[in-house]
Amino acid sequence: MSASADINDIEEGLAFRPKFDSSGLVTCVATDAGSGEVLMVAHMNDEALRKTIATGEAWYFSRSRSALWRKGETSGQTQRVLEMRLDCDQDAVWLRVEQTGAACHTGRRSCFYRRVEAGEGGTQLSFADADRLFDPKQVYSK
Amino acid sequence: MSASADINDIEEGLAFRPKFDSSGLVTCVATDAGSGEVLMVAHMNDEALRKTIATGEAWYFSRSRSALWRKGETSGQTQRVLEMRLDCDQDAVWLRVEQTGAACHTGRRSCFYRRVEAGEGGTQLSFADADRLFDPKQVYSK
Repeated sequence: MSASADINDIEEGLAFRPKFDSSGLVTCVATDAGSGEVLMVAHMNDEALRKTIATGEAWYFSRSRSALWRKGETSGQTQRVLEMRLDCDQDAVWLRVEQTGAACHTGRRSCFYRRVEAGEGGTQLSFADADRLFDPKQVYSK
Repeated sequence: MSASADINDIEEGLAFRPKFDSSGLVTCVATDAGSGEVLMVAHMNDEALRKTIATGEAWYFSRSRSALWRKGETSGQTQRVLEMRLDCDQDAVWLRVEQTGAACHTGRRSCFYRRVEAGEGGTQLSFADADRLFDPKQVYSK
């Protein structure tokens, strides 16, 4: 098969052929199915992808811990998957989820609780939607 | 500075300290500011990040072409950035954009035009919001 036929297959076909990177991962974006807010960006290996599809709950692969990880297994803040989509080149996944509580390990609803702003003294961050829904010291110290 | 103090700085501070991976990139998710739909997942190097902040238009770094790339420079389908956010560990960027036309090089509004579904014969894709807004052959053959 020629390279262009293969690209056409991946982009226009209906076969599920996720393209893992050299570490065996695809990028995954989870958004709140209600508000459209981006909750988190994480990674999935083949097993996380298969478990997510099979169970309807989000599983990820932690690069820092080199471990498969069911979202919420420690914190109880699970993600129920309402829809899963794959992008054109099949190397990124979009999950529309119902998030229990907070997606971020810092206790915020979303990991994206800081805005990037160009200021006079250079680029700065400012807090946005940064209220904590839980205290990470309590949740992760068990 | 201890590792935990450093992590606290990155997660709770307001200094802009993007954490680039070994290829010098951060992951970037662009969503439609109106609908919340995920339009695309791409990458930015330091220059793309700085140009996006300075111009208010999305710039990316193409891994396949190893080149800085102003979104829409060939297709005219530009992205005006209404808000930029950074995640907890500062290695992922969320752009809320006004998308001119289609974000995907295949001519679709979003790159995520296929749903992943568990079926009897295994996992399959199905088209969703897959209408083309432009013909890629016409747009990219110039």
